[in-house]
Amino acid sequence: MTPTEPEKKQRSYATAITVAALLLVVLLTCVPYLVSIALAEGPVQGNAADASPIFGVTIPAGYKQWELIAPAEEAAPLDELRAVVGNQTAIEAYQAGKLPFPDGTILVKRAWKRKQSPEFASATIPGAATTVQVMVKDSRKYASTGGWGFGRFVNSKPVDEAQHRTCFACHDARAKSRDYVFTRLAP
Amino acid sequence: MTPTEPEKKQRSYATAITVAALLLVVLLTCVPYLVSIALAEGPVQGNAADASPIFGVTIPAGYKQWELIAPAEEAAPLDELRAVVGNQTAIEAYQAGKLPFPDGTILVKRAWKRKQSPEFASATIPGAATTVQVMVKDSRKYASTGGWGFGRFVNSKPVDEAQHRTCFACHDARAKSRDYVFTRLAP
Repeated sequence: MTPTEPEKKQRSYATAITVAALLLVVLLTCVPYLVSIALAEGPVQGNAADASPIFGVTIPAGYKQWELIAPAEEAAPLDELRAVVGNQTAIEAYQAGKLPFPDGTILVKRAWKRKQSPEFASATIPGAATTVQVMVKDSRKYASTGGWGFGRFVNSKPVDEAQHRTCFACHDARAKSRDYVFTRLAP
Repeated sequence: MTPTEPEKKQRSYATAITVAALLLVVLLTCVPYLVSIALAEGPVQGNAADASPIFGVTIPAGYKQWELIAPAEEAAPLDELRAVVGNQTAIEAYQAGKLPFPDGTILVKRAWKRKQSPEFASATIPGAATTVQVMVKDSRKYASTGGWGFGRFVNSKPVDEAQHRTCFACHDARAKSRDYVFTRLAP
């Protein structure tokens, strides 16, 4: 039976509602994921003044929320407490126990001056923050330094080029067999 | 004009599609959030053998992914490295700088034996895990211990009641003015 005008209108009304509802579903489910992915990981695409010399590494957004890989203590003269955290790519690589770390791995070492705990003579706790140091794996971009880019930051600003020239040599000398990464996953 | 039979069918078809689509939207947006809330926070409702004596505190699911509050070092005889992490309620309270911590705050202190770094004579790193210690804020349930329940775990099992009788007295003696919590947020 040929549809009448009112029936055609009803049908296109139903179709329009359905399409609109499906679009809304897609929007509500996909956009939050895309936004969280965009915000959660990766170096901040900030201005060049925030990026490390030589490597162009920046402090990744949200790194303070990243999962802990391990704490550490450094004796005098630095006298620091450290905590190394990693992004999801890093954590998954550590848990899989596989080397090398995949491209996209980001490790951040937070460091503080060690100070005496006011409550316990036997304990030391973090004092002032000293450095935030970042390693980013990109085997093409950083091929000449084992696939890693480095950034050392004090008060959120990158330190000078001379200091950045020292990073890789030390990692190469002492951790080459572990893909240039010192930190082991705390059990 | 009185709607005809086909028009009534079209209208109810359109209505059914709209309602179904709206239900789908609600489902797709609400259920993931509810599931993530249910999974992300709070003590595991496991069996009684996993819960601490006196307080009934359990090791919270997913605590290893929680945000770091601060590392710490403990000298001999314990000779440990520690990392205190907190759930979202804890983190927000720390960032707001307000005491007391609200009900629902959970703090977890992870601890490892300190061992010499193989690469750096000046550094110590985590060896074997020693304890996982949990504080849960519930001002009604734990009114007699400053609002806090305590759990100390070795290899995921709670230690004995005698040890749990010692927890609050020390927190009361040395940290009462800070809502019985020693750990300060690392800057």
